Amino acid sequence: MATTSIIKPIKCKAAVSRAGGEPLQIEEVVVAPPQAYEVRIKIICTSLCHTDVTFWRMKEGPMAAHPIIFGHEAVGTIESIGENVDEFKVGDLVVPTFMAQCNECIDCASERSNMCSKLAFQIGHGMPRYGTTRFADAKGEPVNHFLCISSFSEYTVVDVAHVTKVDPVISPEKACLLSCGVTTGVGAAWKVAGVETGSTVAIFGLGSVGLAVAEGCRLRGASRIIGIDLNPDKFELGKNFGVTEFVNPSELGERSVSEVIIEMTKGGANYCFECIGLASVMNDAFKSSRKGLGKTIILGVEMHGAPLCLESYDILNGKSVMGSLFGGIKAKNDIPTLVNKYLNKELELDKFITHEVNFNEINKAFDLLHEGKSLRCIIWMDK
Amino acid sequence: MATTSIIKPIKCKAAVSRAGGEPLQIEEVVVAPPQAYEVRIKIICTSLCHTDVTFWRMKEGPMAAHPIIFGHEAVGTIESIGENVDEFKVGDLVVPTFMAQCNECIDCASERSNMCSKLAFQIGHGMPRYGTTRFADAKGEPVNHFLCISSFSEYTVVDVAHVTKVDPVISPEKACLLSCGVTTGVGAAWKVAGVETGSTVAIFGLGSVGLAVAEGCRLRGASRIIGIDLNPDKFELGKNFGVTEFVNPSELGERSVSEVIIEMTKGGANYCFECIGLASVMNDAFKSSRKGLGKTIILGVEMHGAPLCLESYDILNGKSVMGSLFGGIKAKNDIPTLVNKYLNKELELDKFITHEVNFNEINKAFDLLHEGKSLRCIIWMDK
Repeated sequence: MATTSIIKPIKCKAAVSRAGGEPLQIEEVVVAPPQAYEVRIKIICTSLCHTDVTFWRMKEGPMAAHPIIFGHEAVGTIESIGENVDEFKVGDLVVPTFMAQCNECIDCASERSNMCSKLAFQIGHGMPRYGTTRFADAKGEPVNHFLCISSFSEYTVVDVAHVTKVDPVISPEKACLLSCGVTTGVGAAWKVAGVETGSTVAIFGLGSVGLAVAEGCRLRGASRIIGIDLNPDKFELGKNFGVTEFVNPSELGERSVSEVIIEMTKGGANYCFECIGLASVMNDAFKSSRKGLGKTIILGVEMHGAPLCLESYDILNGKSVMGSLFGGIKAKNDIPTLVNKYLNKELELDKFITHEVNFNEINKAFDLLHEGKSLRCIIWMDK
Repeated sequence: MATTSIIKPIKCKAAVSRAGGEPLQIEEVVVAPPQAYEVRIKIICTSLCHTDVTFWRMKEGPMAAHPIIFGHEAVGTIESIGENVDEFKVGDLVVPTFMAQCNECIDCASERSNMCSKLAFQIGHGMPRYGTTRFADAKGEPVNHFLCISSFSEYTVVDVAHVTKVDPVISPEKACLLSCGVTTGVGAAWKVAGVETGSTVAIFGLGSVGLAVAEGCRLRGASRIIGIDLNPDKFELGKNFGVTEFVNPSELGERSVSEVIIEMTKGGANYCFECIGLASVMNDAFKSSRKGLGKTIILGVEMHGAPLCLESYDILNGKSVMGSLFGGIKAKNDIPTLVNKYLNKELELDKFITHEVNFNEINKAFDLLHEGKSLRCIIWMDK
């Protein structure tokens, strides 16, 4: 068995965020050896998710933990393993995930839950099992972790509960997409909603996650996928992901979105997905869902922390509202399934990649996302 | 085929509500023959549900439709049938239900929905298909229907979509219970929540519906059923229905109900049922549900029309909130199943009947329910 005693710290490049909203700086950092139940991963490529940007913008408060290495959507190979690691060997192709699967707690044992309670989801800034960091900058000062991944670094250390081995046949940039955003959307359609053949679906917000929901619904045979977005360009884009109809709330005059959806679907959609993060849109989605069986699935993180307020009589009409993190996906069980679906040409991933940049140009990826130009921008470490 | 031309109006006794909150008056009424798609039922017995009381109390407003014949939980036999009625014959033992099942619309065709869209649920005051009444008082003035049933009458006319034939082996007072309250609670556990063996359950409010939820959870093999009620007498009572633990919110000092439930269940209950009708309790139930898989099932009709407001971040923790009418039960499919479960000694019904009165004493049933003394009071028409 490998022991940490023979594993050396690694000096490598990382994109460090030193102040909220300021460009990341490519710096030399030292990545400590993995401790027990940890692996060190050589990142092949990573991509930028809105959550990185949200936290990167924070200038103060307990969540603004600069200096910090962002990035949580990635793929890499195992470079070294700490003690008590049996699941991986050096060279394995792996996808890190911000949600853990310890496979020891009762929640991991449940088929219904993806909320590991041993390594519960938290916005921590160190390793999940110990709280400490594995990063130091050139001056020897500690640098924080983000979402247990910190993939904006050539090497990173991740807890084994946050790592899934994948078939190396898949090209790395496709595997990278399965690390967070696409999996969240596809999983929401597949595991949270349980969309079935012939379903009618309404998706509020056609960003990457909303489009991934559409892809998941398309894959499950939904017959109508209605996309709702203020940006009219999203309809043409959405067609590639299975969106069949488009509603622009700014073009409805005095009619509400829910009135229009209810009319289009003769009573409401079977599944309404909120992929924006606004309580008012969550309510629109709920109202647009069909009495008797309509499910509203919340994926968006409410931007202002507002509560989700529903008409209490309306929920009695046989409606439900459900939320999830990571689309209800249990990484170690479900990501290999998604890889297979991609390799079998069922799940389409290529269309999510709109841009690719070198690691040195990582700030371009932020600009592209901020300007609404990119879905996923792949950031290559070695190119 | 029977035609209405040979069916005569019937004079009989009915308990008419002439003013909100005033005692019902036993009067002679004329019950018209059933029209097409209708049957006339000779009521054997009926029982009083909180919903009758809620509407009876209304002194004004569009819902205070006096004179009216209340009652919607009952059993009887088919006395005569209108045109186009193939499903029933004279003498059949039947249970009327306030929710329709037309078996023609796409919602009746769905396995998931119990919200018939052809004869959609509404608080109307006439026959669902025509809007007209089949009752007139001694002066020939029309008397309103209630919830498409109006069982506080020796005879009543009901639409075929609101009637389910049951095995006459079951004694009528047991069948009567399946007409509304008990079915709602058992159905919520069985069909809405899908409680499974070993589940942990919290039931907020141990009235008849809450106790029926407990009975449903017991039947599904829940391992822990925590009852929450302000009335300490409810624990002993609840034990008969499967309640294993009791929490009295008035005895918790500064601790909240959800803190206590989360501690008792090491993280929250799998299923939390709100059986009171208060938005604040709905929120307590939601907070008491387990991350990753906790379902909150709303049965209570919010007393003040307040919205259901949930912490939007918390729902992302893999929680869901679901509502239903009539416990998600499709009467014609599911009530015969419940009858069989009763006859097979799985479902216990006897314990719900705490009182029995003659029809002439119907106001006693109101007093008993108002005083919190009864669960179900059977009102016999012929005794």
